[in-house]
Amino acid sequence: MTAVPTTPLSPTDRSRVRRHRDRQRSDRAELHAVLDEALVAHLGRVVDGEPVVLPTLHARVGETLYLHGSRAAASLRGDEPVCVTVTILDGLVYARRWFTHSANYRSAVVRGHARVVVDPEEALAALRALVAHVAPGQEDHAEPPSRKELAATAVLAVDLAEASVKARGGPPGDGDAVAAGDPRWAGVVGLATRVTGVSTCPALPADTPVPRHVPREA
Amino acid sequence: MTAVPTTPLSPTDRSRVRRHRDRQRSDRAELHAVLDEALVAHLGRVVDGEPVVLPTLHARVGETLYLHGSRAAASLRGDEPVCVTVTILDGLVYARRWFTHSANYRSAVVRGHARVVVDPEEALAALRALVAHVAPGQEDHAEPPSRKELAATAVLAVDLAEASVKARGGPPGDGDAVAAGDPRWAGVVGLATRVTGVSTCPALPADTPVPRHVPREA
Repeated sequence: MTAVPTTPLSPTDRSRVRRHRDRQRSDRAELHAVLDEALVAHLGRVVDGEPVVLPTLHARVGETLYLHGSRAAASLRGDEPVCVTVTILDGLVYARRWFTHSANYRSAVVRGHARVVVDPEEALAALRALVAHVAPGQEDHAEPPSRKELAATAVLAVDLAEASVKARGGPPGDGDAVAAGDPRWAGVVGLATRVTGVSTCPALPADTPVPRHVPREA
Repeated sequence: MTAVPTTPLSPTDRSRVRRHRDRQRSDRAELHAVLDEALVAHLGRVVDGEPVVLPTLHARVGETLYLHGSRAAASLRGDEPVCVTVTILDGLVYARRWFTHSANYRSAVVRGHARVVVDPEEALAALRALVAHVAPGQEDHAEPPSRKELAATAVLAVDLAEASVKARGGPPGDGDAVAAGDPRWAGVVGLATRVTGVSTCPALPADTPVPRHVPREA
């Protein structure tokens, strides 16, 4: 465990959770946990006055969130307002009423100004973190980028200064219906991202051993 | 199977895929498939000139995408540019080089103007679709909204007129490394969202039978 800064989340009015305030989390460790577990981030930008949201890979290093070069990153000019949102779906809430249906989830919303990483050392560290985040162990198993590859890769950085975390867990919110005589089943269907199989690159001999760091089917 | 309109996707310049054009899909049926499979959408808006991206539940009815009332929806004033992005992560691409690491995914980006649904009949149909999308069968098992619940629910509608679909599948892109003498393992770790368990609402007797329409652990 590394030390967690004591700065609370949501230091600004606009990043305060407005709806379902009971679902707001205020611990910086929870922000880190959500960012570290999620495999995909959604990067929001304003282009010609309109919103554009694109999926991208991300990794956290301390209080910086790095995003992998994407179409968005490639066209980013430098200091630009962005919103990076990650969502982990933990389950679906089957309730007695349509109205009380919901999802169990954890989500983080990071707002800030994106910076294009230009320092090669920082870019290399960020790419290492990105590879280690989505494919742990590959940062050592695979070859680091050549100078040319490094130059061809866009990496964005966003400070985790302004962020909010929201989560819902637990059973349906309409359990009082039981006492009121409603016998209908209600509950939660738990969901998670699982490994469904590992397929070796067809260019390799089929019996090439799969390294131990590669996750297996659950 | 319902008939699929023949309008191609991406009728505008700005919704053409710029990076990795080989990953662009142009079939409207693929757009529908991605939207229908994904359980979470990310809604992007512009608020005070800056992007805001929030997760929400969605459902498609024909060529309309409905979004469940959220903080964003509640504050939407009517005709406002939005971007709705859904991403399905199918796998992680373990390559020989950091540079060639990637993700297998399918994503849809829908751009348009959000309309707040005011017609009670359309709102009811949209809510039915939303419940049926995330919890199939519950639209009949659970109670439709009262007039009061209906009034308290915000539903947004976005036309699927302007949308793009991108997908990556298959093995790592650096298979030529094998012929060049690189013996290192590379491949794809397949991923999917799976049911991890079903838990009955604790307000009910524990032996309350789980209805057949509720999905079970894989």
